[in-house]
Amino acid sequence: MKPSFLHTDQHRVEQFLSHYLQQHASPAADLQQAMAYSILLGGKRIRPSLVYRCGAMLGAHAEDLDAAAAALEAMHCYSLIHDDLPAMDNDALRRGKPTCHIAFSESTAILAGDAIQSLAYELLTSHNYHHVSSSRILDMVRSLSRHSGAQGMCAGQALDLAHTNRSFAADTLEQMHRLKTGALIQAAVELAYYASPVNNSDHLELLQQFSASLGLAFQVQDDILDIESDTETLGKPQGSDHNANKATYPSLLGLAAARQKARQLYQDAIQALEQLPYPCDDLKALAQFLIARKN
Amino acid sequence: MKPSFLHTDQHRVEQFLSHYLQQHASPAADLQQAMAYSILLGGKRIRPSLVYRCGAMLGAHAEDLDAAAAALEAMHCYSLIHDDLPAMDNDALRRGKPTCHIAFSESTAILAGDAIQSLAYELLTSHNYHHVSSSRILDMVRSLSRHSGAQGMCAGQALDLAHTNRSFAADTLEQMHRLKTGALIQAAVELAYYASPVNNSDHLELLQQFSASLGLAFQVQDDILDIESDTETLGKPQGSDHNANKATYPSLLGLAAARQKARQLYQDAIQALEQLPYPCDDLKALAQFLIARKN
Repeated sequence: MKPSFLHTDQHRVEQFLSHYLQQHASPAADLQQAMAYSILLGGKRIRPSLVYRCGAMLGAHAEDLDAAAAALEAMHCYSLIHDDLPAMDNDALRRGKPTCHIAFSESTAILAGDAIQSLAYELLTSHNYHHVSSSRILDMVRSLSRHSGAQGMCAGQALDLAHTNRSFAADTLEQMHRLKTGALIQAAVELAYYASPVNNSDHLELLQQFSASLGLAFQVQDDILDIESDTETLGKPQGSDHNANKATYPSLLGLAAARQKARQLYQDAIQALEQLPYPCDDLKALAQFLIARKN
Repeated sequence: MKPSFLHTDQHRVEQFLSHYLQQHASPAADLQQAMAYSILLGGKRIRPSLVYRCGAMLGAHAEDLDAAAAALEAMHCYSLIHDDLPAMDNDALRRGKPTCHIAFSESTAILAGDAIQSLAYELLTSHNYHHVSSSRILDMVRSLSRHSGAQGMCAGQALDLAHTNRSFAADTLEQMHRLKTGALIQAAVELAYYASPVNNSDHLELLQQFSASLGLAFQVQDDILDIESDTETLGKPQGSDHNANKATYPSLLGLAAARQKARQLYQDAIQALEQLPYPCDDLKALAQFLIARKN
């Protein structure tokens, strides 16, 4: 079941992003349009919701979480624009609508992705925080940059491309997904922590365990849905990863074992969460929703 | 005449970048190689030298300037990789060597650019500063992100692409260059200021005037060299901007007027500098070198 806060969080981050884009319009009209198109294209806004729910659990003020939520979504959005490019996954549809390079042009899509990555850091450092010190904001920027770059998300996409059409061992697949999807999920939880008043490295570590398991569970479920779901529900051609000769959990493990793996990872995530002395109902509901989702 | 510190600064930033890349290697081998190839490909390292010279003038400690110098060069490097892509300027040569997408692949070049942008922020926020407060480091990140994104460098490249093969008014050309090249030159000077002990908004404003004039002068000179110089000296095909039907200062104003404009901008830059109560010989020599250079 879809948790009711998901819609609230989605609306909140979209308002925040939309407002920022309007207030900081680019002098290059095409670029501005392509950025707004891609950022406001929709999507579940899972990373922002993770920031808001995790932050609230840790006692952060909602207005101190907006920049982190928006920065995470911006970072995710830029990666999708670049992943969809002809030289990368060459996808024409995203969330049921033309991808950025189809709706605009390839060069504009490359630049929009680049500018949206800059935007993530601009959001984090331009925000008017109420209860977060400069030193903790720096922790946020450091976490986001490390999880996004050559040792995080970009490395995951590079490993993915390097292994398309080749055999993939299960542990390489796992490493790839921990970087490609997991890194930003981890960043979401870390940024929420740094925006909160909590200063406890044991708690941070448990949050990192939670997000590592959740991030991988999310990706296993994505692979399962790529096989099970139909194109309309998914918003991209069904079986597109399978058809692109990409290794997936179901193709490596079989569908039943992949489902079992997703359940196990979900349980690991919940177990880490339950060791924390905070009310974690919302985060549990979010994790449950991500595993049970149909698209 | 080439100032002697240019070589020292160049060596220093290359050592710093090379060391960081080795210490933080990507698990994706192709990505790591493409990043190192592009970052260590050479170049005059003008932005790092601006950081070191401006910072030294303001009393900053050299070890507090390394991250800013390296971050500026990383940001410049990523923009070159993406500008060279087939969908953008489609250049096969850069500094006399194959561009990143030729030496590796288009997808690896896109990802290397993306990861190098992340690297810039990672460098700024992971550095062990000795005399710079968290709040001033945040100022550095904010300045870099604003000058890089949709209201800075990316906007300049978007305006450039939008006007290729179209008529360009002189003021549009100036706006484009102020963003495409000028924004990072401004960022270099601002980052040096934030890494220094100086806290004086009038001085910051004069530094901004200096860098704005210098940045534009640099680009006018680039346009002049594109016509005057030969391919071997330039490291890219001579007349390549001209041949791509790009508006340039010489094509709009004529060669003599373009030369006059470069000289005037240089004088404006020096005038701003001389109003500051600091010893500015190095920065003057650097500005002089940038205007008199042959490649």
